[in-house]
Amino acid sequence: MTVGTPDAGTKAGEGTRTRLLTTALKLFTEHGVEGTSLQMIADALGVTKAAVYYHFKAKDEITEAVAEPALRELEIIAEEASKHRRRGAQTDHVLAGFVDLVVRHRSLVALFSSDPGITRAIEKSLDGSGAFNKDRLLALLVGPEPDTAALVAALVALTGIAMAGGSPALAELDDDSLRSALLDVGKRLLGRPRSR
Amino acid sequence: MTVGTPDAGTKAGEGTRTRLLTTALKLFTEHGVEGTSLQMIADALGVTKAAVYYHFKAKDEITEAVAEPALRELEIIAEEASKHRRRGAQTDHVLAGFVDLVVRHRSLVALFSSDPGITRAIEKSLDGSGAFNKDRLLALLVGPEPDTAALVAALVALTGIAMAGGSPALAELDDDSLRSALLDVGKRLLGRPRSR
Repeated sequence: MTVGTPDAGTKAGEGTRTRLLTTALKLFTEHGVEGTSLQMIADALGVTKAAVYYHFKAKDEITEAVAEPALRELEIIAEEASKHRRRGAQTDHVLAGFVDLVVRHRSLVALFSSDPGITRAIEKSLDGSGAFNKDRLLALLVGPEPDTAALVAALVALTGIAMAGGSPALAELDDDSLRSALLDVGKRLLGRPRSR
Repeated sequence: MTVGTPDAGTKAGEGTRTRLLTTALKLFTEHGVEGTSLQMIADALGVTKAAVYYHFKAKDEITEAVAEPALRELEIIAEEASKHRRRGAQTDHVLAGFVDLVVRHRSLVALFSSDPGITRAIEKSLDGSGAFNKDRLLALLVGPEPDTAALVAALVALTGIAMAGGSPALAELDDDSLRSALLDVGKRLLGRPRSR
């Protein structure tokens, strides 16, 4: 076996990167993004700060990497929803996609919908790139010029689904039950038919 | 005019304390509680850190003082709701009181419902005091042993109303319009009659 740094782009390196992101997300959830230092991440992993720097140059890069998969999925959901011609079909597509995303990324979405640190980091990283846009999701849910009632209902739906989905009170609930309950609530708020 | 420290328990002192809490809330909203230092609060007020220490010994005390009025109101809402015999009347009382509280304390409630820093600070400060209890509010909304659908709907209602109420997207909306839209959404989620 040849000798080398164990983390240098090998499978073991990928494993460490994944472990690092999982640990970072856990600490972000507990302490907020701004309350989490690279040293805390290193300590929780049982490695040196240098080992963390090997993978990421700064905390911002970790924040982006933690959020990236879910953001990319959101982008795809919006992209596909916009292909529907009818408003109702767009609404249903965004709602179902968003609920499913929340259920699969429960803790990340709770953090994303709540922590100003991660929101700011992501906004900075996406600034000008035209990629994910919160307003685009809202517009797909309720149209470009909703009345107040529709806008408020859609905001309660998006934020409430994200917050409730990540809530410790529902942590014991299996994915299918959570998905179906959140979908039902969303349809009620957005005035969509509930039988499938 | 007699000479003295201008802030020593006088009206001017009360004014500074209020200004300090208002500024702290603004910084908490922008940077999170953990991302806000006493120095940042002093800088924003244009005073020295010593002047901040004159009013509060530590950031935790500021966090508690920022949240205290709204928490006390929540307690009173729960207290009065529990006097109603019928479940529906309890639900209506908590919902109307919570919506009104959210509208009057928009930015604080958004922070309270989202930032792990303020939630932790408040939990620590209330630990064992038996004062405000999130589960108590939920139980008053949906009863002590709700089914999954009712629990999910109530969580989406509480968190969504708080998040949407504090959302920049609705910042231009006047209090009465926001209150009525949020109340309507809450009633829909909790299955309460919407005509008054």
